Amino acid sequence: MANNIYKKSNSPLIIYDINKIALEKFTFLHETTLSDRLIIHAQTPIEVARRSSTIITMLPSSPHVKKVYLETKDSLIHGIDENSFLIDSSTIDQNVSKEVSKKIIEKGARAVDAPVSGGIVGAEAANLSFMVGASTLEDFNRAKPYLSHMGKNIIHCGGLGAGQIAKICNNMLLAITMIGVAETMNLGVKLGIDPKLLANILNTSSGRCWSSDTYNPCPGVLPNVPSSKNYEGGFNNSLMAKDMKLAVNAANDAKVSVILGAIAQQLYSLLSNTAGYEKKDFSSIYRWLNDSNETNN
Amino acid sequence: MANNIYKKSNSPLIIYDINKIALEKFTFLHETTLSDRLIIHAQTPIEVARRSSTIITMLPSSPHVKKVYLETKDSLIHGIDENSFLIDSSTIDQNVSKEVSKKIIEKGARAVDAPVSGGIVGAEAANLSFMVGASTLEDFNRAKPYLSHMGKNIIHCGGLGAGQIAKICNNMLLAITMIGVAETMNLGVKLGIDPKLLANILNTSSGRCWSSDTYNPCPGVLPNVPSSKNYEGGFNNSLMAKDMKLAVNAANDAKVSVILGAIAQQLYSLLSNTAGYEKKDFSSIYRWLNDSNETNN
Amino acid sequence: MANNIYKKSNSPLIIYDINKIALEKFTFLHETTLSDRLIIHAQTPIEVARRSSTIITMLPSSPHVKKVYLETKDSLIHGIDENSFLIDSSTIDQNVSKEVSKKIIEKGARAVDAPVSGGIVGAEAANLSFMVGASTLEDFNRAKPYLSHMGKNIIHCGGLGAGQIAKICNNMLLAITMIGVAETMNLGVKLGIDPKLLANILNTSSGRCWSSDTYNPCPGVLPNVPSSKNYEGGFNNSLMAKDMKLAVNAANDAKVSVILGAIAQQLYSLLSNTAGYEKKDFSSIYRWLNDSNETNN
Amino acid sequence: MANNIYKKSNSPLIIYDINKIALEKFTFLHETTLSDRLIIHAQTPIEVARRSSTIITMLPSSPHVKKVYLETKDSLIHGIDENSFLIDSSTIDQNVSKEVSKKIIEKGARAVDAPVSGGIVGAEAANLSFMVGASTLEDFNRAKPYLSHMGKNIIHCGGLGAGQIAKICNNMLLAITMIGVAETMNLGVKLGIDPKLLANILNTSSGRCWSSDTYNPCPGVLPNVPSSKNYEGGFNNSLMAKDMKLAVNAANDAKVSVILGAIAQQLYSLLSNTAGYEKKDFSSIYRWLNDSNETNN
Repeated sequence: MANNIYKKSNSPLIIYDINKIALEKFTFLHETTLSDRLIIHAQTPIEVARRSSTIITMLPSSPHVKKVYLETKDSLIHGIDENSFLIDSSTIDQNVSKEVSKKIIEKGARAVDAPVSGGIVGAEAANLSFMVGASTLEDFNRAKPYLSHMGKNIIHCGGLGAGQIAKICNNMLLAITMIGVAETMNLGVKLGIDPKLLANILNTSSGRCWSSDTYNPCPGVLPNVPSSKNYEGGFNNSLMAKDMKLAVNAANDAKVSVILGAIAQQLYSLLSNTAGYEKKDFSSIYRWLNDSNETNN
Repeated sequence: MANNIYKKSNSPLIIYDINKIALEKFTFLHETTLSDRLIIHAQTPIEVARRSSTIITMLPSSPHVKKVYLETKDSLIHGIDENSFLIDSSTIDQNVSKEVSKKIIEKGARAVDAPVSGGIVGAEAANLSFMVGASTLEDFNRAKPYLSHMGKNIIHCGGLGAGQIAKICNNMLLAITMIGVAETMNLGVKLGIDPKLLANILNTSSGRCWSSDTYNPCPGVLPNVPSSKNYEGGFNNSLMAKDMKLAVNAANDAKVSVILGAIAQQLYSLLSNTAGYEKKDFSSIYRWLNDSNETNN
Repeated sequence: MANNIYKKSNSPLIIYDINKIALEKFTFLHETTLSDRLIIHAQTPIEVARRSSTIITMLPSSPHVKKVYLETKDSLIHGIDENSFLIDSSTIDQNVSKEVSKKIIEKGARAVDAPVSGGIVGAEAANLSFMVGASTLEDFNRAKPYLSHMGKNIIHCGGLGAGQIAKICNNMLLAITMIGVAETMNLGVKLGIDPKLLANILNTSSGRCWSSDTYNPCPGVLPNVPSSKNYEGGFNNSLMAKDMKLAVNAANDAKVSVILGAIAQQLYSLLSNTAGYEKKDFSSIYRWLNDSNETNN
Repeated sequence: MANNIYKKSNSPLIIYDINKIALEKFTFLHETTLSDRLIIHAQTPIEVARRSSTIITMLPSSPHVKKVYLETKDSLIHGIDENSFLIDSSTIDQNVSKEVSKKIIEKGARAVDAPVSGGIVGAEAANLSFMVGASTLEDFNRAKPYLSHMGKNIIHCGGLGAGQIAKICNNMLLAITMIGVAETMNLGVKLGIDPKLLANILNTSSGRCWSSDTYNPCPGVLPNVPSSKNYEGGFNNSLMAKDMKLAVNAANDAKVSVILGAIAQQLYSLLSNTAGYEKKDFSSIYRWLNDSNETNN
């Protein structure tokens, strides 16, 4: 994503990551492209905040976001001013997201939440979706050009936190459809239908879904998807388990029944804790069901 | 479907239904169009078999198919000869389907199974999918022109019975995605996102599926779908419960694990037995979840 | 419970409830028994703390416990001293329970968590189980005589918070066995076995459980249980939904897979939000399954 | 079971098994006990029927029962007369059971279905339950003394087939409670409670069940149960998967919703097809959940 930002924008780039090697690699990559623009390595979040007006963050979970934004003396909050504009693309608890944005706005700066969907495949195809929670249309329009460097669909979902809500809704549905496609492909193949033919049937019928036509979990049905690359890359089971936990907790707090959602969460929690599956793409649920069905062949 | 057949083919039509009123209505409808072609009312299945070379059947369940094809003195089997070609578009147990086709072929005639998918919406849009099980490509090509009068996607799924397998696979996935969309729309709306906006987000993200972009279960999101017409029309919960039972039984016999499939079957079995839901479209799972969530608002 | 405490102990009783009518009723009840011992109505929690050395609380949820113990100027924490001994019988988040106990101990007082199990039936039969989390055996022994007035099984489950853990474990299993018994009784009865006979079979076989032999959800099988009293009294669906949410959240935080537990939570969340079930005993899952199966008879 | 029959009855024993080694072992065992009674090896089922008046069968599934009773020239049906009394202790489809009994009664003989419950532990403790379907009390009383040699609880469940119905009801509940106990023990132990203490708490509280107090799935909690013997012996996952399939199919045919039952069936189907679990006792669900939770410790 930083890649696309750098390539498509003309402004200098100030980058920070606790993983220094990642930073070196990134810089090396672009120096070799003889780019003349600066890539500055910040030593702390606060330095990023002091030296940039527009700040984009992508962090693994709520505690990380709290730490980077608020809780240490080097946190972003201490370096921002009324010109600062903060875009958080992390997928986290909507309540934490709102709390962080509120604190930023109290300092006179502006903030939006903009979690992303589409996985590696979407990222490579520059086909990501950004789900933006912004309290004003002005904030949304201010974020849009930056997000457009990284994705195709930039959607204003509502006020602060709405991006997070849209994201967990999408991922809950994604998890359910993926498991559904895995069970269905497994059933059809066991009953004797060719996998590619079955996928073709589903994709032209009412079972059609992204998990089937764009990201099919059955190896060999589609090229260049994780299922055809030993389930490497993509969006791993641990990350899906994390998002599903956010979704089901939000549903429980809102007293909304998500029966299939709760089972899907349990299954991804199981996979994320099963040796050999923790870091595999979430479409590996197909292999997991299949593994356990092997002994009956 | 008979409608489309009649309109798009030039041959006379011989029709039979235990519901005589349906037959009268159908004939009246077309006489008023001043069509000059014959519509003949047969009194029994065997009469249909004797007076037609190509026979298309659409029946509710396995026992009905056995009765109409084999078990009575007026059954089709007694009226066919080596020129007869039988297309059964019923969704039934694949084993029954194979048994019936076998008996037909023993009489020198030809048979294919061609269950259909797409629901009322697909039927109106002439956008149905036919899943064809045919033992030879010749049989498939012989069925295709007739099926093309009624649908867009005519797919050769494999040998006899393969159409049935493809159909239950599609419908199992359809049930899972529909419940998934219902839970997801319900969650997002309860958390404050506008239904149309949420659907739009899902439809341009990885949660995209037919149940969301073509048949959304949340009232008002799409026009002319059952959810916007008090869940009238479409594919009712009892029919979905029936297909889900076929799918889960087939999975159990094949020792294939269908965890979400099994829950989806239980939920549709529940709806098909819940007062007020038996005959509603299967997207009414959204209202059912919502009903039970009403008291907490 | 206060009843049993009063009857079986010799010390004066200081009681507090935000529901004044409940207090009046309680006092009236005992004055009519010509008891000579004092029942004092406290006006605030802090008054209870100042006038008693041993304090027993029973509150509906974590926020209530925080408020009564810590958060207001009238909270218990401001009235206790090194002689105070606090027993909280509420079922709440184990982390909140630990936090509250910690604050009490910092003030030189002692605290234990002692959530209770067994429902109304157990309460009437003075057959409750108390699950005690106490950091020392001394604390446990200090709590035991008081708890013995109210229940039969007083179990030391471990350090502070362990009572809460044991309680949610028991109730998760209780919810699962209850739904299991409801589904099983429903199945057997529909297949033609007499309910009492079926219960007798289960109770002398490997399906035996408390939900079947002591609290059977099928009306008429046992006298004096909620199922034989229109599901009145007992432990209602909303309370079970609350405990199940605590259990499943704890499991998710601990990355423990609770597949049936997650479904049971969703079903009780559904019942607690279904008109006519919110305040019914949790064994009413039997009626709920049955209601929805009515239309097929 | 044959063991107990032989020891406790005085009549000669005629035995048949397709596994000749089992027969030899059995005979050798008893010859070494210097018993003077005859043990006769029959070569075929029909020979058993001709030489015995009371015949007890125990077979793995519906097709086996059909074959041994009806379908071959050596089947029992051809050897019985009006003095014959047939007791089938197999657990099979109730419809098959009724059909077989009907054919026997047409030959003037009498028949009952008497499936058994309690597992190896129950068998060793001579503590089995027999669930008897008998069309008359006379038939039940005729079977009772023989069954009493093998078990403690001999229950008349109703007419022919009722034994089968009671058995699948019990085993469905057994599967649900076992998975529930496994999830619960797993949760409590992960949250820091000693397994024996937790079991003790559950067994004296409302979570109490046979799967917890008599057959606990957590290793070391109880001696001499499969969980303390590497899940060897007992009632294996494949057998439980088979019984669960009978239960869920019966529920689907009767349009009864068994939501937890359907999940339990899927999980045992999964275990019965998972390498290393196929032949383990059904309490190994605890290890299975634990295996997959290992990587997060």
